[in-house]
Parts: sequence; C-alpha cells; structure tokens
Amino acid sequence: MKLLEDRIKEDGIVLEGNVLKVNSFLNHQIDPDLMAAIGQEFAKLFKDQGITRILTVESSGIAPAIMVGYALHVPVVFARKKKSSTLNEAVYSAEVFSYTKNVLNTISVDQKFLTASDKVLIIDDFLANGQAVLGLIEICRQAKADIVGAGIVVEKSFQKGADLIKKAGVHLESLARIEAFVDGQVKFVEE
Amino acid sequence: MKLLEDRIKEDGIVLEGNVLKVNSFLNHQIDPDLMAAIGQEFAKLFKDQGITRILTVESSGIAPAIMVGYALHVPVVFARKKKSSTLNEAVYSAEVFSYTKNVLNTISVDQKFLTASDKVLIIDDFLANGQAVLGLIEICRQAKADIVGAGIVVEKSFQKGADLIKKAGVHLESLARIEAFVDGQVKFVEE
Repeated sequence: MKLLEDRIKEDGIVLEGNVLKVNSFLNHQIDPDLMAAIGQEFAKLFKDQGITRILTVESSGIAPAIMVGYALHVPVVFARKKKSSTLNEAVYSAEVFSYTKNVLNTISVDQKFLTASDKVLIIDDFLANGQAVLGLIEICRQAKADIVGAGIVVEKSFQKGADLIKKAGVHLESLARIEAFVDGQVKFVEE
Repeated sequence: MKLLEDRIKEDGIVLEGNVLKVNSFLNHQIDPDLMAAIGQEFAKLFKDQGITRILTVESSGIAPAIMVGYALHVPVVFARKKKSSTLNEAVYSAEVFSYTKNVLNTISVDQKFLTASDKVLIIDDFLANGQAVLGLIEICRQAKADIVGAGIVVEKSFQKGADLIKKAGVHLESLARIEAFVDGQVKFVEE
C-alpha cells in the first residue's frame, strides 16, 4: 500500500536492533485518516468472504481494527491482555510472549463474542515474531470459528511471524512488508 | 444521545455494586457504526473550536477517540498505562488510580505529541470517579496545551467524576448520563 509505505519512509524512525518506531502515526499518536484508508484496503482485500467479526488485541491493534470493522460494518472484538475484574466469565484464552517487552501475557476473549458460526478476520498493527497473531488464531480455534485471514499493517518480513502464520494455514495480507533496514533506511519487499 | 441511550437500555447489563456492563458494544466487543455516530456527535458538540489533537488513554478510549479524530481530521494520541520499552523518551505523565481494578497506574504521553500550541479534546469511554480524565488533564497542563473540553461516552452522574472535571475548569459533554440504577434498569438524567 503505497500511501502507507510513503508514510513509513517519511515518519518512521529506525532504531538500533532492527526496531522501527512508527509511534507518530500508528501506535501512540494515530492518524485516523490513514487508519480509514487502511480499513478500506483490508475491506477490499478480504471482500465477499462473509466476514462476521474482526478480532484484534489491545492496544495498538484497536485503531486499524475499528476502521476495518467500519468499512465492513461488522463488530470488532479486542482480546484483553490479562483477565480483568470485568472479564471473569467464560473466556477463550492463549498465552502470548512479547519479545519486545520480554513478558508473557494471557490474552482472552469473552466466549459470548466469538462463536462457531463466525467468519473472523484477524487484524494487528505489527507482525514480527507472530506471537500475538498466533494467540488470536488459537483463540479462534477454541471457539471453532472460521478464520478468513489475518491482516497486518506493518510486517517485518525478515522475522519469523509471517512464516508461522502461513504454516498455521491462515491467509496473510500485510499492507507494508519490510525486507530489511539498510543504513537506517527502510527497504520494502518488492512485489 | 438517543441512539446510545437506546443501545445501553437494550444491551447494557446492570450488575451488583452499580456496575454497568457494556462490553457487547463499547469496551470489549465494539460496534464501529455506533462509534462513528459517536464521533460525529462529539465533532458537532465541539465544532469551530480549532481542535488540533484528540487525547485518550488505552485501551477502551481508543475506539471512540479514533472516530472523533476521523470526524475532525486531527491526530489522536492515546496515553499509555505504563512506561514501555518503546516509550523511554521524554514523557508527560500522571498517576491514575483505578477503583475498578484497585491499582495505581502511571499514564504517559511522549512530549513530541502534545505541545503548548495544541487545542486538545479529551475523549474517554466511561466517567465514574474521574481519575483517568483528571490524569489526562494533568498531562495537558504539563504540556501547557489548551484543553477545549472532555467528551465522555457514558457518564455515571451519581459518582464524583463529573463534578471533579467541572471543578478543574474543563467543559464536559457526556453522551449518556446515568442518574441511577433502579431494579436492574438504567435511569438516565432527564435533560
């Protein structure tokens, strides 16, 4: 998605250790017009597949997920990162290890909001090692819901996440695919 | 806002201890079309005031905030609930006590994303004791940003939050104002 790649080139900051900071438009400050364009793009990529629900995980998956849900007019569910006092009912859950924060979280979804008759599109902002998306896939499988696919805003293609998702049998669409960081610049995968 | 009050009556669940559960459309599963209507309503309530940024706090403030930002075409910033490894630069921060979870969080915003030339609209999903919004007000004051107002989706008017915000000199608009829970039913404040 050229609009997104241009924005990453313009406003993304490459830090040491292959870290890309996009917190000026994606995951701390958010550009809602860009999110709406991203929502439209995913709606186009996954059209005519009878999607009934969007699934993401808090916090930075929520903005793109809401805009996909808005484009498709289906509800959005975000998995919570730990069981809270208002989430003490029957839940589907999965363990997710965050390499960035070096912490193991439990993510969970109320069983009311994911069923065997659902066709689910998983959305997340970033894909690196794929742990969050694999956790969401696990939750869908517990619910016996159909997974239509996974839509990612920014994929670091040189890490293992994309392969793991494909190996799990899930159709993956990423709007920006980063092949490498070269001299502090982002190099995208050539389509 | 009638659309919202009707939805609360239809899908909200009143639990013991004056707890209203709206996790089927607001803060776990989210109805994006309702959020878009909420965004339009806030844009109308705060029109012509030169708003430059929307400020909220993760996670359940993000969905309504994104839709307000989309309606006004201004960036949305969400405060993070603890300092993460990708938020290690200069930040504005405030302590926020959560009565629901009985925990003290630090919320913080990168100083790059809030400045003295900003006119800020604070958005949150729920207002009860007001601690989150007071924390966001504190962060705006650290940044010397103008606060245009605070927009709340659901206000529990019988708790102290609304008064505390008004006493802080901030214009408050809430789309649904709950006066009481009577026999498991929601009673709204009559305008």
